Amino acid sequence: MGTTIRTATVADVPQILAFIRALATYERAPDAVTATEEGLRRDGFGPNPFYYCHIAEQNGLPVGFALYFFNYSTWKGQPGVYLEDLFVQPEYRGLGLGKALLKRVAAFALERGCQRLQWEVLDWNTPAIDFYSAMGAEFLDEWRNVRLSGEPLRRLAGSEVKLEPEP
Amino acid sequence: MGTTIRTATVADVPQILAFIRALATYERAPDAVTATEEGLRRDGFGPNPFYYCHIAEQNGLPVGFALYFFNYSTWKGQPGVYLEDLFVQPEYRGLGLGKALLKRVAAFALERGCQRLQWEVLDWNTPAIDFYSAMGAEFLDEWRNVRLSGEPLRRLAGSEVKLEPEP
Repeated sequence: MGTTIRTATVADVPQILAFIRALATYERAPDAVTATEEGLRRDGFGPNPFYYCHIAEQNGLPVGFALYFFNYSTWKGQPGVYLEDLFVQPEYRGLGLGKALLKRVAAFALERGCQRLQWEVLDWNTPAIDFYSAMGAEFLDEWRNVRLSGEPLRRLAGSEVKLEPEP
Repeated sequence: MGTTIRTATVADVPQILAFIRALATYERAPDAVTATEEGLRRDGFGPNPFYYCHIAEQNGLPVGFALYFFNYSTWKGQPGVYLEDLFVQPEYRGLGLGKALLKRVAAFALERGCQRLQWEVLDWNTPAIDFYSAMGAEFLDEWRNVRLSGEPLRRLAGSEVKLEPEP
């Protein structure tokens, strides 16, 4: 049967959650996953999905996934594709499955008229960095990623912003 | 009249494009903008918009904007908000308009059930970094941003991925 890359269906949600957990463990954050099957079903398989997902199968067995969504480039004035997760089970690495998943996401981007595919990589993940470099990817190291969550986010949303009069 | 933060309408598109160009100039990339009014209209103001936008007005004059969209956290299993652009015209800085725009985006995030607001900042933009730090933002410096575009993207999408047989 060999390898198949196919679009995920709602029946894949338990497997997708298992992949998300396995990837978080690889990323040294095994306790960071609070996602539920219910949330993944709601967000990925309704009429206006928040994400898209492909599954890699080896001889009929799901062994990897790619999960992505649209972002937007104001410089280009068009949407792009942002790859949130790419994962192949360790025992199936080196067979080309990661590249096959990436190729499918790249094809999706071009079909939808997007000129950019973006993602993030951990700075210690040298094998991944080398793999992406060989593919011709750029590293946008001038930009720092910033996040506001929890109490600081609620504080900002509820803050009284004191607007100064014009000088 | 003071300050108003309001949701952008399709009539604001020429102004939004002017803000995008002004921000790119501030970011030392004045020639990077190839966006058009037509593209911004199509992508932001249809039934399933790729982005959302608020305008800051001072005494009825548009002087800044925030442009953002949904991303997706597989760890949280829920959408988040990604702030692509935040800009206030230089002569109107220091009045609280940037914070008022951010506050509105934070409120949008919480209204939609999102627990995270993310964005990027240039590593030399010290005033912005200090402003975000004071607000309680985290900097995710372990992650590098990667982009594939142009010829490398088309090459990947069209590649023959040679899948190795299982060992």
